Amino acid sequence: MTLPVLKNDRFLRALNRESVDMTPVWMMRQAGRYLPEYRASRKNAGSFMDLCRNAEFACEVTLQPLERYPLDAAILFSDILTIPDAMGMGLYFEAGEGPRFERPVRTAKDIEALPIPGAEDELGYVMNAVSTIRKALNGRVPLIGFAGSPWTLATYMVEGGSSRDFRLLKELMYKQPEVVHLLLDKLAESVTSYLNAQIKHGAQAIQIFDSWGGALSWPAYREFSLQYMQKIIDGLIRENEGRKVPVILFTKGGGLWLEDMAATGCDALGLDWTISMENARQRVGDKVALQGNMDPAVLYGSPESIRKEVKRILDDFGPHNGHVFNLGHGITPFVDPEHARVFIEAVHEFSAR
Amino acid sequence: MTLPVLKNDRFLRALNRESVDMTPVWMMRQAGRYLPEYRASRKNAGSFMDLCRNAEFACEVTLQPLERYPLDAAILFSDILTIPDAMGMGLYFEAGEGPRFERPVRTAKDIEALPIPGAEDELGYVMNAVSTIRKALNGRVPLIGFAGSPWTLATYMVEGGSSRDFRLLKELMYKQPEVVHLLLDKLAESVTSYLNAQIKHGAQAIQIFDSWGGALSWPAYREFSLQYMQKIIDGLIRENEGRKVPVILFTKGGGLWLEDMAATGCDALGLDWTISMENARQRVGDKVALQGNMDPAVLYGSPESIRKEVKRILDDFGPHNGHVFNLGHGITPFVDPEHARVFIEAVHEFSAR
Repeated sequence: MTLPVLKNDRFLRALNRESVDMTPVWMMRQAGRYLPEYRASRKNAGSFMDLCRNAEFACEVTLQPLERYPLDAAILFSDILTIPDAMGMGLYFEAGEGPRFERPVRTAKDIEALPIPGAEDELGYVMNAVSTIRKALNGRVPLIGFAGSPWTLATYMVEGGSSRDFRLLKELMYKQPEVVHLLLDKLAESVTSYLNAQIKHGAQAIQIFDSWGGALSWPAYREFSLQYMQKIIDGLIRENEGRKVPVILFTKGGGLWLEDMAATGCDALGLDWTISMENARQRVGDKVALQGNMDPAVLYGSPESIRKEVKRILDDFGPHNGHVFNLGHGITPFVDPEHARVFIEAVHEFSAR
Repeated sequence: MTLPVLKNDRFLRALNRESVDMTPVWMMRQAGRYLPEYRASRKNAGSFMDLCRNAEFACEVTLQPLERYPLDAAILFSDILTIPDAMGMGLYFEAGEGPRFERPVRTAKDIEALPIPGAEDELGYVMNAVSTIRKALNGRVPLIGFAGSPWTLATYMVEGGSSRDFRLLKELMYKQPEVVHLLLDKLAESVTSYLNAQIKHGAQAIQIFDSWGGALSWPAYREFSLQYMQKIIDGLIRENEGRKVPVILFTKGGGLWLEDMAATGCDALGLDWTISMENARQRVGDKVALQGNMDPAVLYGSPESIRKEVKRILDDFGPHNGHVFNLGHGITPFVDPEHARVFIEAVHEFSAR
């Protein structure tokens, strides 16, 4: 397959800390419920997982925000729980309750019985979506592939769904750490092959979502989350189609641990809004690029307050290479799509060199 | 009233960074549902607020953990939401749902109409409890008084109860910051008079619980949470009965902001488990003592793993003055009371000079 030339490579250049004409911007969960066209597509698609499994639908919703806004990257429409689902845990979504598993894993026996899902078999539908989206993008912007971190996946798999305190997994972690390591090892292997398959099918950058690593004590973070993300990074294809495939590590609430995260060999760190970009930049130096870090709640404000906050964050980062603008967490269903436009346009306007 | 001599002042000495024979320890929510005797008292007391309003009951449950364990401080049994309740918002607790308000405040008009509750009137029952507990303690250990931070109280008052993302309050904060400042100003005034009354009635140390300040961006934390805690600290009685009344500031998730928190003039910072004690100590120097920081989930582990974690944290803090051992958040209902004992005894055993 001959691939079209990438027309907008700001995002990839910034991740490599190269100079750019303006700061690239995308939004976590940019293909989502805040968009009326997304809600319309969802209506016709059945369940959330049906939408993920249908490459045409996944492609359609991935492209929706790009049709509206001058975004600098697309992200595969999928879910971090595709892997445990492919392990046979019976993923389903309950209205207003978030994800649930029919068969949570809580013992060594449960975990030993989990298969490593085939990235081209059980998870082949994701690769199909990646290829389809990549083709449809036609070189417009780069496509981001992603996966959840082993720790984050484990929280859902052991708790059986979302949790506020991760009681069951933490209990297992403090009582039988070796059992949790068994699970995390299996997940690191699965995530590595899953992400490599995404890269082979056309993902041009990778983000690892460690949504819940920030709930750990600092030594436990290193032992139970960071160690396994390190394993994944060590096993990833780092160059494809003659270009580097940058890896972004995003531990929400990980602002105290940036030095260790940067030492994994990733290319960029995702930051939430609790940290100053300047402080983060000084701490990681030239090791990695930084992505973030506006509180998504800023989008509930007025257009003027959104523009003010964008300006503040750009100034906070300062006149350096290596900034990808983003929200510090996914955009929420309650945001006015016109406010998202104000945000995206302000990033470009205020950062134009 | 002649007060008995304080028999165990380790806790107050550590907060003043004086030498101690062993590291003092207490647990947030130590009078709580993990204790069978607490559950028995609750059964006879009606609602949670009925329990808070009855000085004899409040005293009984405050003392329960001290009967079981060699704790170095008692904390008033009460709730941070007594102030908004006394403002007439109609606090109630729904089983499994946490606190709720019948009449949340969401507009300038709502907020203007809120009265500043009288610490000796509407909140007189709390002062009654403080006096009763102080008398019953008979100099055994110091009594901690407390309040929620203005920002934290505002989250419940605007959202109408617990929240994961503080959507309504953050929307108001970004759209009409002056309205939120009006609320926070009123709360700072109420909290100051409330805490001063607790001190006059016998509280020997004060903790300000900023449970949700960590959800803010770093500039918003300074403007909407820290600024108002600073106002409170500036207005507090700092010496009583011929002894300093130390103030502990606890912003959960505030590990990136310790320098600014220490600059408020508080005596100690409460730390959650995401930060290294050594790192925190180096950053705040001799300015403040540190309280914390074990993950309460460690108590789900085995006695050996609990002892190991206690040792690790003591070593992490190192051989310096100014450490009060605590959990990084409240003890949960699921903890085995014998594990709490292992924890408390290990702190004393491993830290004995």
